[in-house]
Amino acid sequence: MRLRTVLAADGGSRAEVCLDGQWYATAAADVGALLATPGWRSAQAHSDRQQNAPERPAPVVTTPGKIVCCGHNYRAHIGEMAQSEPEFPTLFAKFADTLTAWNADIALPGPAETVALDWEAELAIVVGTVLRHADRDTARAGIAGYTVANDFSVRAWQRRTSQWLQGKAFDATTPLGPELVTPDEVDPGNGLRIVCRVNGIDEQVGSTDDLLFDPATLLAYISEFTTLRAGDVVLTGTPGGVGIAADPPRFLRDGDVVETEIEGIGLLRNQITHYPNKIDAVQRVGKERQ
Amino acid sequence: MRLRTVLAADGGSRAEVCLDGQWYATAAADVGALLATPGWRSAQAHSDRQQNAPERPAPVVTTPGKIVCCGHNYRAHIGEMAQSEPEFPTLFAKFADTLTAWNADIALPGPAETVALDWEAELAIVVGTVLRHADRDTARAGIAGYTVANDFSVRAWQRRTSQWLQGKAFDATTPLGPELVTPDEVDPGNGLRIVCRVNGIDEQVGSTDDLLFDPATLLAYISEFTTLRAGDVVLTGTPGGVGIAADPPRFLRDGDVVETEIEGIGLLRNQITHYPNKIDAVQRVGKERQ
Repeated sequence: MRLRTVLAADGGSRAEVCLDGQWYATAAADVGALLATPGWRSAQAHSDRQQNAPERPAPVVTTPGKIVCCGHNYRAHIGEMAQSEPEFPTLFAKFADTLTAWNADIALPGPAETVALDWEAELAIVVGTVLRHADRDTARAGIAGYTVANDFSVRAWQRRTSQWLQGKAFDATTPLGPELVTPDEVDPGNGLRIVCRVNGIDEQVGSTDDLLFDPATLLAYISEFTTLRAGDVVLTGTPGGVGIAADPPRFLRDGDVVETEIEGIGLLRNQITHYPNKIDAVQRVGKERQ
Repeated sequence: MRLRTVLAADGGSRAEVCLDGQWYATAAADVGALLATPGWRSAQAHSDRQQNAPERPAPVVTTPGKIVCCGHNYRAHIGEMAQSEPEFPTLFAKFADTLTAWNADIALPGPAETVALDWEAELAIVVGTVLRHADRDTARAGIAGYTVANDFSVRAWQRRTSQWLQGKAFDATTPLGPELVTPDEVDPGNGLRIVCRVNGIDEQVGSTDDLLFDPATLLAYISEFTTLRAGDVVLTGTPGGVGIAADPPRFLRDGDVVETEIEGIGLLRNQITHYPNKIDAVQRVGKERQ
């Protein structure tokens, strides 16, 4: 089953579900809200058939209560960053404002050579239920599905201090989508090919079976210290091939097109854009919701 | 002017404002929602006079969209952690679930000697308006007020990886309150005494004029990468005297009482409690809202 979130004509957003190849509207404002609704899997719950109206895409989840991200989680990426295999997942947070649509422009927050904007293709987990002190089996059963993310990172800010947040938290720099795919249709444990292409050239090519901490392990671990709920998002880390690990390092420039794809899940296509005027950037790439 | 949030009899919460020494109820669910309401300063907006009914306290803001925390921000704490003065603020995030009331028990998430729970008295800023690419003057004008926080930190988890989040994000471990005090009544730039006492003994004693990045500077800096809104919370860092910097290090134990006080703003009083059964801990210290 596939689910997505689209912007509605009234300026709000709504979740849609795909049944027998057709998208149906729901009463929920986004997939996160839909997942928190009992009986959401029932086709009868979704009556308004879409008439192929042009849709403006939104992030699969627009206002998650939590976004937890894992760094250093693909063995190939750990190697290229000259790290040893960690005993515990390296976790940091993102704000909901970082999220943007699968086809949105990503604003360069300054001259390319100064800000060092880098790509990070990631498998994203969307949580389907409340998890607290969950074991791995409970955590696995609590996964609503998977989608694609790119954790675009402003390396110059990320490396200003020991804590990565400020380089990972620029508004509207994390595309999430285009669709949520439920676990009965796709299993990252089977090794899904994950690719990041920049201007058509493969920069990252990995497989989700290279993950050190798999989705169920990550959710169980996180649930030891905090409560996960329907609609929360966990980004699982990026495979080898980031720009900062290249020799010499390569970063994104105005006009670059980045495609992020995971086999069986979906494809993001985002253009990098430099708005010399910061306020223009806020207005152009900022999300509709305040 | 002082504002607070209390739990209502119906299980929800509501903001209250203090006018001429009396607390009045408002229609807002918490101080964050109140700050986002135009005209909230008007006494006429708040009609239901409280009848001295016993109130159950809540965090001043219960569901902020963002909590941004600054580490290494008091010169005395930078010194005790053997750090040099940073050029940029070290920022990390917390989830709203970390917040708890000024008098709530704080759960030790395991045996005291294993988890290494430490105290961090902090001045907290609550944002009063939308800030994006704000200069310092705009940021200063956007401060709704100040309150008191303790960023209780699970050092054993904080130090598992390079990123501090997991040691800072245990649910219900950050008391925030008891009240928000507006900037016309109190100015941290004047040097407010900030103290953390454990079982009556002063462990941290500092002054808010020892802050390297002051409140307006922090808000302006954060607004360069993300949008701050009414009700968002910024924790400004802790002064010298944390337990992990003592020789030998000292950590909190079952039954310890921690008082966190900032001159002219308020006092938190929290007891440390170890629940051997994790689910008991969730039920006892978990917040009412799901």
